[in-house]
Amino acid sequence: MNRATLVAEIFRKKSFLCVGLDPELRKIPEHLLGADDPILAFNKQIIDATRDLCVAYKPNLAFYEALGLSGWKTFADTVEYIGDEHLIIADAKRGDIGNTSKMYAEAFFSRFGCHAITVAPYMGADSVTPFLAYDGKWAIVLALTSNKGSDDFQRCTLGDTEEPLWEKVLHTSQTWGTPDNMMYVVGATHPESFARVRDIVPEHFLLVPGVGAQGGDLAAICQHGMNADCGLLVNSARNIIYASAGEDFAEKARLEALSLQTDMANILAAIARV
Amino acid sequence: MNRATLVAEIFRKKSFLCVGLDPELRKIPEHLLGADDPILAFNKQIIDATRDLCVAYKPNLAFYEALGLSGWKTFADTVEYIGDEHLIIADAKRGDIGNTSKMYAEAFFSRFGCHAITVAPYMGADSVTPFLAYDGKWAIVLALTSNKGSDDFQRCTLGDTEEPLWEKVLHTSQTWGTPDNMMYVVGATHPESFARVRDIVPEHFLLVPGVGAQGGDLAAICQHGMNADCGLLVNSARNIIYASAGEDFAEKARLEALSLQTDMANILAAIARV
Repeated sequence: MNRATLVAEIFRKKSFLCVGLDPELRKIPEHLLGADDPILAFNKQIIDATRDLCVAYKPNLAFYEALGLSGWKTFADTVEYIGDEHLIIADAKRGDIGNTSKMYAEAFFSRFGCHAITVAPYMGADSVTPFLAYDGKWAIVLALTSNKGSDDFQRCTLGDTEEPLWEKVLHTSQTWGTPDNMMYVVGATHPESFARVRDIVPEHFLLVPGVGAQGGDLAAICQHGMNADCGLLVNSARNIIYASAGEDFAEKARLEALSLQTDMANILAAIARV
Repeated sequence: MNRATLVAEIFRKKSFLCVGLDPELRKIPEHLLGADDPILAFNKQIIDATRDLCVAYKPNLAFYEALGLSGWKTFADTVEYIGDEHLIIADAKRGDIGNTSKMYAEAFFSRFGCHAITVAPYMGADSVTPFLAYDGKWAIVLALTSNKGSDDFQRCTLGDTEEPLWEKVLHTSQTWGTPDNMMYVVGATHPESFARVRDIVPEHFLLVPGVGAQGGDLAAICQHGMNADCGLLVNSARNIIYASAGEDFAEKARLEALSLQTDMANILAAIARV
């Protein structure tokens, strides 16, 4: 999915919501456990309940890999079920030497049909650029993540420019790709940093985890993080998919998604579009 | 596999060789392409030809994921075929927020039965510590990698201590684990850095990629990188597994592994053991 289509979908649906599909067997409703593939059954109902309210789905690979071989089948079936009208983000945090990242790109873009993948920047340019070689596909580079551990290295100040590492990642990676094939992860738990992010990357889309369960605030993020194309994909996972553990889980998931989408529609109305 | 067993195996086999199992369909010998699972057939012959010469195998997940669902089956079957007498390192470069890294640990340690996994440090403490909660299992943290992109961020000098980022990773992560459950990746292409690595982490094992195809020099690494327990696992992949593209590929792989092991035996003889 290219940028023009993504932006059009955001303004058509009045939503920049990304639904995180991070299912755990021990957390899904009991009545699904008898299904052939309980996680797939769960995902399908969540997807059906939220399709019109979101523009992206983000399955986190860890939750599928933890199920062993059957989990990869569930992942593939989930991606297929989502179809082509949503941006499918493989939240995989991959990254390796060039010839190896090339294999990961082949895996997620060609084999599994995802549109985007999250990528860790620690190994530098050649670990990321192979993901930028596909038309209509995206590398989403970790910049400033939503977890406590983001203080350990991402916020370390560098000697030459006195900028923190995460800003250096934004600056350096500008030469690798464009706002048409690269996005950044910026955690919702750092709303004060969004203004600085926009100084460095005014045009890029930002994937924003951490709204909801991790405590991020939507209004604060939008105030400093939005651009004329919206430029944000705000992810919510646990708050939506585990809104209820009963038979009404999909209905309750929809209500949570609808509540976020309603807020998003109001915020988007403030951006003038020709 | 715990540290005592690993060290005993190294001195028994006179080898600290790790064989990288990074197979590509387009590179394996043609006569295998008719097998039910050509990559598994290839891996099995490589493993049989090198079992007595190495202490570890390191399948890189990218090469299996690139094959889609069947690749994960091949990975699982390969791990099973290796068995329990070698350290099995899932070269997966994983790392995410705490509850997600926990799922990755479950995947590779509990589901697939690997003994170790490579982990990217960019997201900090909570992205790595879940991998340290398993007895006899290892997190192998990227410190200084063998690729060109390692210059982009890993070698950036920090303002407060004037150390490069990769040294900060070594220092900071000391509080997360111990030499019994944590190793570091230090690329063979930076032999001049091994003395500095040993100043900071004298006891930890180092996983050293980049010997062979990427140009690293075994003697130089050992001179500065070895400790009393050996403390090194030197990986070679392409030079061994693709030593020949003919029917003699396993035999030629063995000769390459034997050549490295012979050098290693000579080097190990210089370490006094009680």
